[in-house]
Amino acid sequence: MEKLEHIGIAVWSLAEAIPRYEQLLGTNCYKTEEVDSEKVRTAFFRQGETKIELLESTTPDGVIAQFIEKRGEGLHHIAFAVTDIRAEMEKKRAAGFQLLSSEPKTGADNKLVCFIHPMSAGGVLVELCADRPAD
Amino acid sequence: MEKLEHIGIAVWSLAEAIPRYEQLLGTNCYKTEEVDSEKVRTAFFRQGETKIELLESTTPDGVIAQFIEKRGEGLHHIAFAVTDIRAEMEKKRAAGFQLLSSEPKTGADNKLVCFIHPMSAGGVLVELCADRPAD
Repeated sequence: MEKLEHIGIAVWSLAEAIPRYEQLLGTNCYKTEEVDSEKVRTAFFRQGETKIELLESTTPDGVIAQFIEKRGEGLHHIAFAVTDIRAEMEKKRAAGFQLLSSEPKTGADNKLVCFIHPMSAGGVLVELCADRPAD
Repeated sequence: MEKLEHIGIAVWSLAEAIPRYEQLLGTNCYKTEEVDSEKVRTAFFRQGETKIELLESTTPDGVIAQFIEKRGEGLHHIAFAVTDIRAEMEKKRAAGFQLLSSEPKTGADNKLVCFIHPMSAGGVLVELCADRPAD
């Protein structure tokens, strides 16, 4: 794991949250993006070498909507940059961490991603993410 | 705000959590420290320019113990590095964020810190932290 790539924060509404985070972070949102596979709309802010990613559900039954129903808005996951995602997934599996997918999935920001189940990581939803190889 | 200084994670037991996070992060804990004012013992890991800080309560009624009782182990707060903490506190107060102390407090890692109430920051407990001026 190379660095903390981003922190994911669950919000009810990007329209309402973006101005608040712009004031909090002292920097403007530089990108929004919809990720169909995860049923989320995302908004990104830079903070040093790490990004802050706000996540809004696009459906009432999406994972982000469910998270907020249960726990309220707030910190959702942390993501670490890796170079070889398949090698890192195998290493984590061998160490006893439970992966949420057997293959990398397409995430926001043109990344290949895989999540580790919070039950196997001390209550923290952890994402591994790697740049997608050039075509 | 300059960068994400650290992420705070609430754990029941440092003794149990440290080996798990060493495996997860692929790096060793480089420091543990007790912070009397916050009733916590902390353990630090480096991840790029950001630290991961595990927090164990030293008392059954401490804020970390209460957090875990209510929500389970997991992500607790995010901390941003600032240069002039009093100026940053004033800026945040003027922007409508509610500070949890009117003066900076002594935190872990020889920092001056101030927290922003999660109710005023979209459910996220945010810490401002600055290096303590040299004596």
